[in-house]
Amino acid sequence: MKATKLFRAGEHPVLKDEDAAATPLCTGVDKEDKHLGKALHKEIAELQEKLYAERDRKVLLVLQGVDCAGKDGTVHNLFRKINPMGLRPVRFDVPTAAETARDFLWRVHTQVPRKGEIAVFNRSHYEDVLHPVVYGQIDAKDLARRYAQIRDFERMLTETGTVLLKVFLHISKDEQKRRLQERIDNPDKHWKFDPEDLKHREQWAEYHAAYEKALAETDAPHAPWYIVPADSKPHRDIAVAMLLAETLRGMELAFPPGDAKLAKVRLK
Amino acid sequence: MKATKLFRAGEHPVLKDEDAAATPLCTGVDKEDKHLGKALHKEIAELQEKLYAERDRKVLLVLQGVDCAGKDGTVHNLFRKINPMGLRPVRFDVPTAAETARDFLWRVHTQVPRKGEIAVFNRSHYEDVLHPVVYGQIDAKDLARRYAQIRDFERMLTETGTVLLKVFLHISKDEQKRRLQERIDNPDKHWKFDPEDLKHREQWAEYHAAYEKALAETDAPHAPWYIVPADSKPHRDIAVAMLLAETLRGMELAFPPGDAKLAKVRLK
Repeated sequence: MKATKLFRAGEHPVLKDEDAAATPLCTGVDKEDKHLGKALHKEIAELQEKLYAERDRKVLLVLQGVDCAGKDGTVHNLFRKINPMGLRPVRFDVPTAAETARDFLWRVHTQVPRKGEIAVFNRSHYEDVLHPVVYGQIDAKDLARRYAQIRDFERMLTETGTVLLKVFLHISKDEQKRRLQERIDNPDKHWKFDPEDLKHREQWAEYHAAYEKALAETDAPHAPWYIVPADSKPHRDIAVAMLLAETLRGMELAFPPGDAKLAKVRLK
Repeated sequence: MKATKLFRAGEHPVLKDEDAAATPLCTGVDKEDKHLGKALHKEIAELQEKLYAERDRKVLLVLQGVDCAGKDGTVHNLFRKINPMGLRPVRFDVPTAAETARDFLWRVHTQVPRKGEIAVFNRSHYEDVLHPVVYGQIDAKDLARRYAQIRDFERMLTETGTVLLKVFLHISKDEQKRRLQERIDNPDKHWKFDPEDLKHREQWAEYHAAYEKALAETDAPHAPWYIVPADSKPHRDIAVAMLLAETLRGMELAFPPGDAKLAKVRLK
């Protein structure tokens, strides 16, 4: 079964803790899983070169998930074989003063991929329909508007040549505990730690409710959401690689036709 | 011997065709060279993580060279192990209208690395002291000013926490011929071909004279130029990896100290 079918969020996504540990794409044999992962990374790199050669369309991968869901690790593993010149990795941190002085889509718009590029957003405009909801900083009317603004923005991007896929990395509360505690127990990893992470963890149910709503409101055939079970890092990596590979395959990428005149040139 | 000593351009660099084929860093045994390359890529990735953890300083690698010198291939191979989230690859193409409407450093300045990042410039502000010189579009006074502006700009970058290294990938005219002809003979590579490449090739001596002058004018202890013999791709890759690894080692990077209070936290 295709990953793009298996993980599609659908109209009424429900984020259950017990689903986060599923590993439908892993064989269970470590060596086979690694082999599959490597083949996918190689295929992604090859398809990206064609995307780059074509210099017409763009790809945007949006990665979302709670703290420790594995967004950084996913980016690291997914693009091992790719030429970085065709990749635009973008991290969205706490907005700067210049960013909050504009609308919430402004900083995101400045970072969309150029023709030939794959951009990966590590967090995104979806942060703006999560925290404000959990902390009651936005009323129902403004929130509904914001969902609509996201839908309009994403539709415009896809109408102008961007292929979009959005991935929610789904981990359980227990798995987050393990990963946070691991960071706490290793002083060399304290730099990864943000005291806010513990506050967010206390609002686990509220965040997941906000995610369910956001996914439901912004899923579309041209802007699909996928929910990837991510308690298992090997499974997460294979699942996201499959989603991206299937998406790129669907674009029917090919090197531009050669130039018959050029083919005759003999250099001195 | 250190690569940073071996390849340093020095005060009066001379770019001779016959030097481009040198392979002082290769053992000649393919397996050993690959092993060395892999170890360097791993070390670069590890040091980059510390740079990122520190989030204080930045690194800027400038790559220059004639068409087909291997700038793209170098970027692809150099960063195989790195987490792309800490890398900013930037390509400078023909300037856009918005770019030519500003000074020549403007578009470069917008792309300098953030704290914790390694940026790699595939071409750079040095293009502005090459083509205009070769095609006689700049007079001596303006050119002297431009060199000084580059020196000032780079000094400012290093004074504000950027570690800078600049690499000229040195290939011979014969090697360029082989690589261009290869592109011509493979229709799937025609997209890489720019008719301008053949025009530039006719001005080989003029371009290299402009490079010699630019390197001499802008080499400084804090903004060193390295000339890497690049006819051999394996040698080129090892040499640039060594230059970057030695530069990163010199920064004495380390994970920030842990937080004693945090270490006591036990999650529920």
